[in-house]
Amino acid sequence: MSSNLFGGTYFKALFTMPFFIISRFKLLYPRKIKGFRDIPPANMQLRMKIIEAASSVYELFGFKHYETPILEYAEMLGKFLPDTDSVEEGVYSFRNPEPEPLYDYTGKELRDENDHVIMENQFLALRYDLTAPLARLYSEDIFMGVIKNQIVSSNPPLFRRYQYGPVFRFEAKLDPGRFREFWQLDFDTVGSADVATDAEATIILAEALQKIGLNKEDFTVKINNRKLLKGLLASAGVVGDESETAVLRVLDKVDKIGINGVEGELGKGREDLSGAYINGLNLDSNFVNKITGFLEKFSLLSGRLEVLTELSKIEAGELFTEGLSELEKINLFLESSGYPESLIEFSPALVRGMGYYTGPVFEVESSLTYKDSKGKTRKVGSICGGGRYDGLVEKIVGMRVPATGASIGVDRLAELLTLTGAISTGKVNPVLIVAFDAGLMHEYQKIASELRSVGIATEVYYGMNKNLKKQLGYADKNAHPLAVLMGSDEYEKGIVTLRDLRAGAIKSDEIKDKEEWKKSLQFECSRTDLVTSVKNLLEKSR
Amino acid sequence: MSSNLFGGTYFKALFTMPFFIISRFKLLYPRKIKGFRDIPPANMQLRMKIIEAASSVYELFGFKHYETPILEYAEMLGKFLPDTDSVEEGVYSFRNPEPEPLYDYTGKELRDENDHVIMENQFLALRYDLTAPLARLYSEDIFMGVIKNQIVSSNPPLFRRYQYGPVFRFEAKLDPGRFREFWQLDFDTVGSADVATDAEATIILAEALQKIGLNKEDFTVKINNRKLLKGLLASAGVVGDESETAVLRVLDKVDKIGINGVEGELGKGREDLSGAYINGLNLDSNFVNKITGFLEKFSLLSGRLEVLTELSKIEAGELFTEGLSELEKINLFLESSGYPESLIEFSPALVRGMGYYTGPVFEVESSLTYKDSKGKTRKVGSICGGGRYDGLVEKIVGMRVPATGASIGVDRLAELLTLTGAISTGKVNPVLIVAFDAGLMHEYQKIASELRSVGIATEVYYGMNKNLKKQLGYADKNAHPLAVLMGSDEYEKGIVTLRDLRAGAIKSDEIKDKEEWKKSLQFECSRTDLVTSVKNLLEKSR
Repeated sequence: MSSNLFGGTYFKALFTMPFFIISRFKLLYPRKIKGFRDIPPANMQLRMKIIEAASSVYELFGFKHYETPILEYAEMLGKFLPDTDSVEEGVYSFRNPEPEPLYDYTGKELRDENDHVIMENQFLALRYDLTAPLARLYSEDIFMGVIKNQIVSSNPPLFRRYQYGPVFRFEAKLDPGRFREFWQLDFDTVGSADVATDAEATIILAEALQKIGLNKEDFTVKINNRKLLKGLLASAGVVGDESETAVLRVLDKVDKIGINGVEGELGKGREDLSGAYINGLNLDSNFVNKITGFLEKFSLLSGRLEVLTELSKIEAGELFTEGLSELEKINLFLESSGYPESLIEFSPALVRGMGYYTGPVFEVESSLTYKDSKGKTRKVGSICGGGRYDGLVEKIVGMRVPATGASIGVDRLAELLTLTGAISTGKVNPVLIVAFDAGLMHEYQKIASELRSVGIATEVYYGMNKNLKKQLGYADKNAHPLAVLMGSDEYEKGIVTLRDLRAGAIKSDEIKDKEEWKKSLQFECSRTDLVTSVKNLLEKSR
Repeated sequence: MSSNLFGGTYFKALFTMPFFIISRFKLLYPRKIKGFRDIPPANMQLRMKIIEAASSVYELFGFKHYETPILEYAEMLGKFLPDTDSVEEGVYSFRNPEPEPLYDYTGKELRDENDHVIMENQFLALRYDLTAPLARLYSEDIFMGVIKNQIVSSNPPLFRRYQYGPVFRFEAKLDPGRFREFWQLDFDTVGSADVATDAEATIILAEALQKIGLNKEDFTVKINNRKLLKGLLASAGVVGDESETAVLRVLDKVDKIGINGVEGELGKGREDLSGAYINGLNLDSNFVNKITGFLEKFSLLSGRLEVLTELSKIEAGELFTEGLSELEKINLFLESSGYPESLIEFSPALVRGMGYYTGPVFEVESSLTYKDSKGKTRKVGSICGGGRYDGLVEKIVGMRVPATGASIGVDRLAELLTLTGAISTGKVNPVLIVAFDAGLMHEYQKIASELRSVGIATEVYYGMNKNLKKQLGYADKNAHPLAVLMGSDEYEKGIVTLRDLRAGAIKSDEIKDKEEWKKSLQFECSRTDLVTSVKNLLEKSR
């Protein structure tokens, strides 16, 4: 073995050298990029459980698994990032190392005055969500049909897919607990204007969360229709993306700044807690009262029928009425599917971010709580959501295509489930066979094969330090439930010692007699009964 | 519905406008980056089957699922890219939008002459494999221990993990069928110098491929030890990374250029098929003969014992002997685990790329064949491989840590399995409920619920074009096995029509009487028996 060739002493010497010499050896300070993280096995198990459970529900409703690249042309992702007005703010973007032709929107290469194809190292970007790539995928599929006028806005093809994977956001200021790479798990229906697909989406979220392991009592699905608020704004003369967005942005803050804060920011402005003055939008005070009255009233109501009755009393123009009738249709769907008002409710005050939503929006709020690092009880809050976005494909191919979908923030949900202890993955970690005696390695490997042949994950310890404490430390670090120990004496006698390691989780103050307790965790069994004994022990929950 | 707001006519008008006007509307030519691709459901099913089957075997051997970021500091990935001498050639890299301090290798911030921390927008890179990030992860974990001299090269901690996901290569020249984003599925043991872990890795590959669905007869695992060739070279005075790599690079081409080609390129050079002259390495002709003799002899042998016997007759210095004794140990492990020579063989001529391998290397070759687009029968060839790389962690923290592992090229394997038709995923696509009558939508949704409640994936058609042919076209495109049809007449009578869509795969010339055949695919059943009828029909294979 040549493993000592550049070992300890060499490194120690380097450690005291001045930097210019060290740099010649190019040793590196090992680290991840800020905002990125490694995911250890326990978290991976929870992530995979969420993905498998939710995916199986998505598939049950006919969604098919697609995948798109991590990297796209930046212009394809466009300025659709929710909650951000400028792409550059939120996206990891860089120039393609390969120069390529520029195209016009019909797919024709652009040429310069000398009729040469214009080449450029175009901007690429890491996807910031799974919806923008979906719009690109769908647009690519219908593009020729649109060009040839075979596909028009009355007959866009239907497309239903689910997709999961990492997305990337470059947030200049990174809040604690937020990451720049995180996983989403989306399903979308493109090419249907039927709000039954929106209703279906809320049902799918409710079913998926239950399949993941949440109880019905642990969450509520809230539905609103963006057309209600837009209609209200329109009836007061607030129209156009910019003005609408400015108002919705204020309304979206109601949980943080309260009704009075909203009133101030829509009107003449207000002083915040730090004493700083925030300019208001200077909207007419009658209108501000109308809006805040709407928020106040509906923050107290949630029953679907009750909400519909109250909404029907409001007169606020065509768009508002359209929004109401969509909610009525959604309610019929939910009723005929047997979804009670307690599980899926209407919440007309819900804004759900800015961005691209054009109709129904939905959000799932969890009532679970956990204790933060200071021991304070905290609510989990929003765990997933979605809505209708009829304008996304239009931004690429110029044809309006209705679409709706929802997303589970996989990592966030996994983290919250860990904090609340709400579910367990039920995964059994491998049994460790301790490398006690170098002469018995083949026997250890044989035991491992026997255990594996009945489906018990098993690892023979191959580490370089064979110290027993080190080996058990390794088992502990990796949450191995059980260690198999066999020395040459035991081998001769045809016996094996099993040690239950799961009890490590029991707090030491619960244990009265340590020696007694240790003994109760260690068993001898005959070599011939080994597989059965291990199996029984693993099945016995502690 | 506002879906006609910016619909067909609007777009057609645009189509005839000069470009400068169009650009104001920012319509885009929808496309992916060259070398990237979308993965449709059938391919995703195969990919997931490969991943699930292989992962379950990795877990059975005690490997735990970890994940690392897609994006890393470029310097962390370093110049370890197999088959490439320069990182820039193979990697997507760009500057971090966030300026950050530079560190020395001890984690201390670097400062300029005015004692200000030096800030830089450091280079980030998309990972090009899963091994370099593993070295970073492991290094990060042991870093403080190394600095404090608690961890030395005789006791590196043991670490066993598996990981899968996309990796990225920027290859300037993209061969057909190659992609710049593809999936790998790796498992590695870091911190063990025991070649039992190498032997175990070959067993795991063999088990994983069988679990995926390959037969034992469909593939062979080939093992070599890099120390044999290195020893041979050393015995002829060829030492040092550069000279070794130059020779190994030539040997690696033996399948392409033949023994004579190798002889020429090691010696005085040769003319290739195009007539171009390729310079030789001008090695001593005795040595060239020794090497080519070695290649020729062992390309004819594969039985492990036979190979070991022949190798033991060669005298070529210490490193060669070490390589041989490692192979002997691997053979003992394989024998005691019951792995026959026909499944796992020794192949001393195998080079397996350049790069970072330091000891045993292995590769799995499939004997499956497929017909290419020109009807020519082609061999599948290498489908996965790996080997020992004891130097990777050293490049970061300066301490040699033994490591070995293997990788399945998921996408490549999926593609080959598709081409050879070797396995099927056994996945059943959703049943489609045709939207026949707008007044019956709630009844369709009820049927869907009933089918889903017994685990049958079901989709109600929500597309905008309700034309029956369009709906069945949708079912066909998405490989739905079965359509449920119910009009108002049938609803009144309490009956439903089921149409078996899987027969679409039967070629039309096999069908004698089309009308007869069509009838045989369409059934009427009573509404009350619907679920049972659908279940029976799906279980009946065609």
